Amino acid sequence: MTGSLTIAGLGPGDAALVTPEVSAALACATDVLGYTPYVARVPAREGLTLHPSDNRMELQRAGEALRLASEGRDVVMVSSGDPGVFAMAAAVFEALETAPQWHDVSIRVLPGVTAMLAAAARAGAPLGHDFCAINLSDNLKPWPIIEKRLRLAAEADFAIALYNPSSASRPDGFARALEVLNAAGCGARTIIFAHAVTTPKERIEVLSLQEARAEMADMATLVIIGNSATRRVGRWVYAPRRAS
Amino acid sequence: MTGSLTIAGLGPGDAALVTPEVSAALACATDVLGYTPYVARVPAREGLTLHPSDNRMELQRAGEALRLASEGRDVVMVSSGDPGVFAMAAAVFEALETAPQWHDVSIRVLPGVTAMLAAAARAGAPLGHDFCAINLSDNLKPWPIIEKRLRLAAEADFAIALYNPSSASRPDGFARALEVLNAAGCGARTIIFAHAVTTPKERIEVLSLQEARAEMADMATLVIIGNSATRRVGRWVYAPRRAS
Repeated sequence: MTGSLTIAGLGPGDAALVTPEVSAALACATDVLGYTPYVARVPAREGLTLHPSDNRMELQRAGEALRLASEGRDVVMVSSGDPGVFAMAAAVFEALETAPQWHDVSIRVLPGVTAMLAAAARAGAPLGHDFCAINLSDNLKPWPIIEKRLRLAAEADFAIALYNPSSASRPDGFARALEVLNAAGCGARTIIFAHAVTTPKERIEVLSLQEARAEMADMATLVIIGNSATRRVGRWVYAPRRAS
Repeated sequence: MTGSLTIAGLGPGDAALVTPEVSAALACATDVLGYTPYVARVPAREGLTLHPSDNRMELQRAGEALRLASEGRDVVMVSSGDPGVFAMAAAVFEALETAPQWHDVSIRVLPGVTAMLAAAARAGAPLGHDFCAINLSDNLKPWPIIEKRLRLAAEADFAIALYNPSSASRPDGFARALEVLNAAGCGARTIIFAHAVTTPKERIEVLSLQEARAEMADMATLVIIGNSATRRVGRWVYAPRRAS
C-alpha cells in the first residue's frame, strides 16, 4: 500500500493558469483537501472524495492529509496560487516534523502561478527588478516584525508585494502599513491594487501610494508597490531593468 | 490589420509547467521571438516563424517584436519562467516608452512559474514566510546596490532567492554575495542550490551558507537562502509560518 501526498498550486483563479502537472495530479487523486473555496475549484468525479475545510485549520488539515496518504490514498492538498508562498506547503512540513510515524509518506510539491505574478502581468512588469513579498497577516507573527520589514524593504528600494493586506479580523493592518511606507518616503511610489486577479471579478487600480486608502484592499486583493524608479507608459506600469 | 504582442512565460523547463494559457497563445502565433534556448522550446510548425536571438539583445528584440505586431503579426515573446521576473516584459515596456508609434499595439503579459517557485517546491517550502528576490547580475546595476540589498535582506530576515548568481562575464559576484551574507551573520542559514530545476539535468543541494562555495552555482542555478528560522525535516527544508 503506497499512498502519496501531492501539495499543489491551482494558480490565481483562471483554469487556464493551472499547470498540466497539477491537472494530471488531480486526475489521479483519490482525495482532495484544502480550504473550501479552493476545493470548490476541483471538479467532482467518481472515485474522488473532496474534503473541504475552514480557513485557519491548516495544521489539522495537513495532519489529515498525511494520515490519509499513510493509509494508501493518493491525496492532493490544494492551495490557491503557489503552495509554497503563504500557503499549505509550510503547514504540511510543520505537521510532518511533529509526526515521525509519517516520515516515510511520499510527498511532492507542485508549483503554481502565485498571485503576485498574475497581478504584475496584468499591470505590466512592476516586479521586473529586485522585489520582496510580505504577508501582512499578523495571525502568526507580531506586528513589529511586519513594520520592520516594510521599513527595510523601502530602504532597499525593493518593489513590494503585499499578500493578505486586509481581513475582517485585522481591519487596521493595511492602514498602518500605508502609514509606515509613507513615513519611509514612499508616498510618490506607484501602488497597484489587483482585486480577484484572473477571475470574472478582476479589477486593477493604479495610483500613487500617498493617494491610497486602506479600504481599497480586501481579502481578495494583492497589492504591489513599485520601487522608486517604477515608470508608467500608457496603461502599463514597469520597473526599469537598470538601477543607478 | 490588428496584430498583437503576447509576452509569455514558459516556466522553468518542464513542458508540464507551461500554462494552458501560454500554450494557446503559442498555437495562434505567427511569430515567436526570444533568447535562442527559449525559442528552441517552441515546436516548429507551418505558419510559425521562429526568431531566436542572442542574450543581451533584449531591447533590440523588444523593438522587433513591437514592429512585427504593428504590421499585423501575432507575435509571442517568450521568456523562461515568468516574463515579469528578471525577464523580457520590462524590456518590452522600456522599448515601448521610447517608441510612440507603437503605443496602440495590443499587448498582453501571460504569467508563468518562475524559477524560485519551482526550486522552492523541490526543496520543500523555503519561501513559506516573507522573502525577497534579487538579481545578482550587475550588467544593469552597480554592485554596491546589490550589496546594500543583501545586507538589508539579511537584517529583515527575509528568505532570499538569488537569480543569475554567476556567469562567465561575472565570475566573482556570487563569491562576494556569500561574503556579504556571512559577514551579516547568516553563516548558519540553510542555502539551497537548485540547478536546472525541472529539467533532466536537475540537481538540488542543501547545506549551510558557511559551507557554500561560489563554484557551486552556475548560470543555470537558482539559489535560495533560508531565513533564520528555516528548519529541516527529513530531506525537506521549510520556513515555519510563525515568526516571533
